[in-house]
Amino acid sequence: MSESLVTQVLDANRALPAHGLVTLTWGNVSAIDRDQGVVAIKPSGVDYDELSAEDIVLLDLEGDVVEGERRPSTDAPTHLALYRAFEEIGAVVHTHSTWATAWAQAEREIPLLGTTHADLSAHAIPLTRQLTDEEIDEDYEGATGTVLIETLAEHGPAELPCALVRGHAPFCWGATADKAVQNAVTLEEVARIALLTTVLDADAGPLAAAVREKHFQRKHGPNAYYGQS
Amino acid sequence: MSESLVTQVLDANRALPAHGLVTLTWGNVSAIDRDQGVVAIKPSGVDYDELSAEDIVLLDLEGDVVEGERRPSTDAPTHLALYRAFEEIGAVVHTHSTWATAWAQAEREIPLLGTTHADLSAHAIPLTRQLTDEEIDEDYEGATGTVLIETLAEHGPAELPCALVRGHAPFCWGATADKAVQNAVTLEEVARIALLTTVLDADAGPLAAAVREKHFQRKHGPNAYYGQS
Amino acid sequence: MSESLVTQVLDANRALPAHGLVTLTWGNVSAIDRDQGVVAIKPSGVDYDELSAEDIVLLDLEGDVVEGERRPSTDAPTHLALYRAFEEIGAVVHTHSTWATAWAQAEREIPLLGTTHADLSAHAIPLTRQLTDEEIDEDYEGATGTVLIETLAEHGPAELPCALVRGHAPFCWGATADKAVQNAVTLEEVARIALLTTVLDADAGPLAAAVREKHFQRKHGPNAYYGQS
Amino acid sequence: MSESLVTQVLDANRALPAHGLVTLTWGNVSAIDRDQGVVAIKPSGVDYDELSAEDIVLLDLEGDVVEGERRPSTDAPTHLALYRAFEEIGAVVHTHSTWATAWAQAEREIPLLGTTHADLSAHAIPLTRQLTDEEIDEDYEGATGTVLIETLAEHGPAELPCALVRGHAPFCWGATADKAVQNAVTLEEVARIALLTTVLDADAGPLAAAVREKHFQRKHGPNAYYGQS
Repeated sequence: MSESLVTQVLDANRALPAHGLVTLTWGNVSAIDRDQGVVAIKPSGVDYDELSAEDIVLLDLEGDVVEGERRPSTDAPTHLALYRAFEEIGAVVHTHSTWATAWAQAEREIPLLGTTHADLSAHAIPLTRQLTDEEIDEDYEGATGTVLIETLAEHGPAELPCALVRGHAPFCWGATADKAVQNAVTLEEVARIALLTTVLDADAGPLAAAVREKHFQRKHGPNAYYGQS
Repeated sequence: MSESLVTQVLDANRALPAHGLVTLTWGNVSAIDRDQGVVAIKPSGVDYDELSAEDIVLLDLEGDVVEGERRPSTDAPTHLALYRAFEEIGAVVHTHSTWATAWAQAEREIPLLGTTHADLSAHAIPLTRQLTDEEIDEDYEGATGTVLIETLAEHGPAELPCALVRGHAPFCWGATADKAVQNAVTLEEVARIALLTTVLDADAGPLAAAVREKHFQRKHGPNAYYGQS
Repeated sequence: MSESLVTQVLDANRALPAHGLVTLTWGNVSAIDRDQGVVAIKPSGVDYDELSAEDIVLLDLEGDVVEGERRPSTDAPTHLALYRAFEEIGAVVHTHSTWATAWAQAEREIPLLGTTHADLSAHAIPLTRQLTDEEIDEDYEGATGTVLIETLAEHGPAELPCALVRGHAPFCWGATADKAVQNAVTLEEVARIALLTTVLDADAGPLAAAVREKHFQRKHGPNAYYGQS
Repeated sequence: MSESLVTQVLDANRALPAHGLVTLTWGNVSAIDRDQGVVAIKPSGVDYDELSAEDIVLLDLEGDVVEGERRPSTDAPTHLALYRAFEEIGAVVHTHSTWATAWAQAEREIPLLGTTHADLSAHAIPLTRQLTDEEIDEDYEGATGTVLIETLAEHGPAELPCALVRGHAPFCWGATADKAVQNAVTLEEVARIALLTTVLDADAGPLAAAVREKHFQRKHGPNAYYGQS
């Protein structure tokens, strides 16, 4: 039943090293079949080179294994929390991509400095709040989901396709695994250009509101005219 | 009739990812056949991997589709404005290449700091003025062409083969699609070295005028002796 | 007898350029067979492209050649000192990888700024003390081992899989050659993200202790749940 | 007669893009046959992809073409000045490699900050003086040779295998074309690590004299023990 879901997730995981977003086994992609209530996710700590369809783990939304021999990604509870909170999320990507992770470690949101960013989102890429020691102790990966959901409270996952977990790294999402990976690729490039911009001008930005809105709307708004219809 | 124009534009678009100038579908190349008054341009939002000759769109100088099934690049009005303003422009390239875009986002022109830059142009790479809200609202992409044309008023497109759109990214041009792509490759490297130079010395430059003129003239002047004649 | 040891060391040395950790002939990997008391190590100054099993040199723990025609890596005495001091070290990797070497040259330990680092170690990556002129003159490579061992006195090589030699470059180790190379890859990425983080915030970090412990323990602790068991 | 010289120069020129040292057609390698008094050099402005043995130009030490249909590199007079001044130079490499060029544009010598640099030279990589307007006007490329020679007056080309031309880019040399290319590769990496080091500590270095001498001598001194004898 979930063959195409597995293939989608397998391909999306393999796309991470192809796009230079992961080192070794770091990073994972999942996708959900809403009709079946099943999430397919990368197994924990397996090399991308050796990853095959049999390694992909199927979970229900509570995290119980539906199918698969492998232990799922340790970050599975974060993915599941996001799926439970937002119907519009169809896939989740987590990486430690270099430049976005630098912003997460510096505990700074990524300011909206140019149209490349506005093509992705009309908002700064937010930073989650610090987890409490209790949250870390009781359910670290679940609590990471909680703070990501808090960060999305105002704008929602369609307007904000990614966020930075403070001191950790980015999470991205989208309607499909393909789209979520594209958002991860875009975020990394946005993070890189933003960091280089701050080297040239520590007080750069923000981009003029009218340009920001124009770019976001021409790509994602109701009258979008970017791409083929 | 425009077969070679289409091939030229197809090859030039494919050269952008090969040179590391684009991420995903960002960036586009067009070229003009002045005799026919026809511009060939990349379609909007199509993957470079999947791009074929049939996808290239032919427009007249007012932007009406002459041939092609696809929607042209959203940036087509910017390209057309440049062709209408300057007879000597044969091709236009737009990318969000990382290092040039950082200068555009920092809203700084690229100062002339060395001979690598002087081999491209004897001038700093200029920055367009801020668009007004009215310009953005009425005809954003056309107005982007207007401010690029203003930026070229003093030196013209032969002496200034590229400019930075403020808060956005670079546009480059040349007599042919090949040459315009070469200018985009060179600009990105010039932008990268310039940024690294400012890390070493925030007040670096400008290059001595005599060296600057020597390099520009030996490559582009009436008595140029660089390359094979 | 030591065929698999040689193969392991050969493969690990070849992995260094594949991971972008070495330029030209810089860098070397060794591994030890504790039962035989034999260390296999890269020969000095040989191109990675031309390296074959016959080039690998076998040494005893005092540095005498047991087998092989080649001169061993000049850094062999450093490797041997580490093997003599710590039973748990099964392999040693030395590179001049770009970003870790920048920290070594700046004479700064790498602060623990995020979970990527905590996945490798729960400690800052330490810096050896300055060698005295006498140490350099009498036994430079052996003394480099001595200061690395001093640096490991508090936490040991299991908790600290690498250290920076002041003014020089990193050394890494692990239970196997594979694991030591993985640590070298991870260190380089940790060093890169840390440097970029300090560009964004010169006073960044350290990471909250609870997150740090969570990440190190979930990957390396007695109840680790990262990876496949 | 000069077939092997031509092959050497052809291979060395092709090695430049393979090592990531050149963009487009920038950069050139030459080598000299001292017995014949003949210098083989890259033609000006030819793509590396299209370069064949027939394109290599043979010059005498005064710059007259001995063999070849092509116009030699515009930088030929700089190469020839170096060959005339120093018998021990067997090959010359000129590139605009990114990180070394940033130091040249910042008009800063590259300080000796670590052992990677000391393995190349025991000295800071020097910067030529500013050319006078008269020198630029009369014989720009020859005068570039003159200021490089001045820079080498104290230590000579064996101890200083490269130098930075102020506002321009590096020149490197060596006994053979292979060795000169290796020096260019090493310089670029030394320049990169040095720049990143200064980001971490603006006042970094210099490396302790005893370590510097140890590294240079173990690789290049009369009792060198690096590499295979």
